[in-house]
Amino acid sequence: MTVEEPAPVHPALDLDDAVHQKTRLALLTVLDEAGRADFPYLRKVLNLTDGNLGRHLDVLAQQGLVEITKGYAGRRPRTWAAITPKGEQALAAEMRLLAALLERFNNRG
Amino acid sequence: MTVEEPAPVHPALDLDDAVHQKTRLALLTVLDEAGRADFPYLRKVLNLTDGNLGRHLDVLAQQGLVEITKGYAGRRPRTWAAITPKGEQALAAEMRLLAALLERFNNRG
Repeated sequence: MTVEEPAPVHPALDLDDAVHQKTRLALLTVLDEAGRADFPYLRKVLNLTDGNLGRHLDVLAQQGLVEITKGYAGRRPRTWAAITPKGEQALAAEMRLLAALLERFNNRG
Repeated sequence: MTVEEPAPVHPALDLDDAVHQKTRLALLTVLDEAGRADFPYLRKVLNLTDGNLGRHLDVLAQQGLVEITKGYAGRRPRTWAAITPKGEQALAAEMRLLAALLERFNNRG
């Protein structure tokens, strides 16, 4: 069955790759829940290598979606990541699009 | 607030990049609705270039998620893409994970 008539714009097309990529999506949801988390926690809970975690957090930070802060816990250097208001809005927009996708999938003929 | 206790495995980590990438996700949902569609339709409804469409369909075909068939419509050569049973299962698995992500997001504290 070749479908000819034009379909509405597909919700998946509005997804933002910076947010939608699975590791970054996981990072944003964990940070949205925790507010702020340090690198060891993020590495552990998302089963990431240092390199992978650093790369994805860089992408998110360059887009202004997370903020990276360095400090000390006692005498040990620590790095934290925190979601920004812009990050919260981007995650909410992603979730709205995923909900639209799910609805479309669940209501398909 | 640094969260210390181990969290359950994050649903986003089980996402399959072959399916989750936004253009491929759009292609699978459209093909899941239409069953089969030709290149001009997919290009138009998803606003893709030939190269982009071909590249993403190759990834899906290599994973056995879609099947590409070439034929004629009248005397004009045509190429169709159809979702395979494996593709339908992969899309259903993606949707279950997206539903879990959404539920987690909507129930966060």
